[in-house]
Amino acid sequence: MGLLLHFDDEAVLAAELARALGWPLAAVRCHAFPDGEWKLTLPATLPPRVAVLRGLHQPNAKLAALMILAPAARELGALDLALVAPYLAYMRQDMAFQPGEAVSQRHIGRALAGWFDTVLTVDPHLHRVATMDEVVPGRRGLAVSAAALIGAHVAAQVPGALLLGPDEEAGQWARVAARAGGLQADVCHKVRHGDRDVHVALPAGLAVQGRPVVLVDDVASTGRTLVEAARAVLAAGAATVDVAVTHALFVGDALAQVHAAGVRHVWSTNCVPHPSNVICVAPLLAQALRSG
Amino acid sequence: MGLLLHFDDEAVLAAELARALGWPLAAVRCHAFPDGEWKLTLPATLPPRVAVLRGLHQPNAKLAALMILAPAARELGALDLALVAPYLAYMRQDMAFQPGEAVSQRHIGRALAGWFDTVLTVDPHLHRVATMDEVVPGRRGLAVSAAALIGAHVAAQVPGALLLGPDEEAGQWARVAARAGGLQADVCHKVRHGDRDVHVALPAGLAVQGRPVVLVDDVASTGRTLVEAARAVLAAGAATVDVAVTHALFVGDALAQVHAAGVRHVWSTNCVPHPSNVICVAPLLAQALRSG
Repeated sequence: MGLLLHFDDEAVLAAELARALGWPLAAVRCHAFPDGEWKLTLPATLPPRVAVLRGLHQPNAKLAALMILAPAARELGALDLALVAPYLAYMRQDMAFQPGEAVSQRHIGRALAGWFDTVLTVDPHLHRVATMDEVVPGRRGLAVSAAALIGAHVAAQVPGALLLGPDEEAGQWARVAARAGGLQADVCHKVRHGDRDVHVALPAGLAVQGRPVVLVDDVASTGRTLVEAARAVLAAGAATVDVAVTHALFVGDALAQVHAAGVRHVWSTNCVPHPSNVICVAPLLAQALRSG
Repeated sequence: MGLLLHFDDEAVLAAELARALGWPLAAVRCHAFPDGEWKLTLPATLPPRVAVLRGLHQPNAKLAALMILAPAARELGALDLALVAPYLAYMRQDMAFQPGEAVSQRHIGRALAGWFDTVLTVDPHLHRVATMDEVVPGRRGLAVSAAALIGAHVAAQVPGALLLGPDEEAGQWARVAARAGGLQADVCHKVRHGDRDVHVALPAGLAVQGRPVVLVDDVASTGRTLVEAARAVLAAGAATVDVAVTHALFVGDALAQVHAAGVRHVWSTNCVPHPSNVICVAPLLAQALRSG
């Protein structure tokens, strides 16, 4: 039995996770001073086993909170301290693409490893680093995937849907979702020219005419990739196009743009709090924490 | 000879500090991705001695940048890495005032000690922790004071000014400023009821009638203390009241409120970039870095 700590902005997922774990739940009170500093208040004493729920979308200020929270939790009694970050930031900058670029993935991973015994996340966007254990060297890194939950949700909503990963990285993930939903999957080819400038080509020879298509991906950020994929799919004659993602970042007007491109429904897990959340990852997280 | 790194928002002070040090200067390029992550780009190779200028007003996101920057600088060749933080955040929460409160001062100090060999700041707001060496255990902590520069500036602007520290903590500091300017100093009594709710009483028996008064302090945040002190001073018949501070945070409409309370001039050092900056701390910082 442990204690789950959470911040105010994730109270709903926290309650679901605490219930799934059968653990008590306590809020970290976070007072913002006028000068931008925070005062964090934890329960006055902590049990040996503590998990902190802190999703890391828009991560920078949240990382500063963890920088204070983790050593404070140790001082208050936590011996086995886990971070549950349903969305884990800074996983994409995993090499210096130009000389002098900071490899944020390595540095953030090591910082987390300095603070937590376990780091648990959902569908981390790993590329050149293969596993979460490598992300937090010397600690326990755990990753669970929401792909199967998403496949099952899509199958219930759109029987016979064709699942399309909008780029190569989404391919393996789309196939897992398809298997779970008993659906067909394929993968597009993406060329990125900038943060918001991408081109998506449908798989050669794929028949989408008259079919319901669901674009599935781990993360939607600017939504540019989904917009381009949706346009390509509709231009090829698809009956409908929906979107299902694990991490609904949808920065700025991304969601509106996705709908403007012809996308009917957008579904997501509650890894990132967003109006499109329909799939709860609490049972996945609880199972990983209990067995981890 | 070292290299001075800086961020875009502190280019002016950085240029002055580099000139005072006789060191070359390089900007850390900071690209903000739409999802809130940063990509930091440093010079492709660094010399063994590197100083990073990074003031920590509105500190949280800036701390995340340092979390990435410091290990990246090590990988690029920095062996002796200094942080020059003209304003150092989180120094006031130096004990748990209520059970469970995180002692941010200790945790932030230790994080900085994990990243930097030297941490240099100006007029840190230390209270129960006496020295910067205690703030960054095992590393070199350096503090310089702008009090003498402020005293000299005030003496030139307002000959014969009475310097008033608005609270007990400012007393010693006001006396240093007064000595440097050949002026008289005294200190008020402050009672704080909340972030923005304070009461200031003038020193018993102090004659301010008809005199030019300058309120001097290390930091101005909400400005509430300065507002209350200015009102008390003017009610007691002071001829004029001006303000001189090291750290011009002046959050929100604080500066307007200070002027509305009857304050004529506001002067500050360039530790925190602000329109009131008139006193340059670059020579102070350079001297400490060279001798440190």
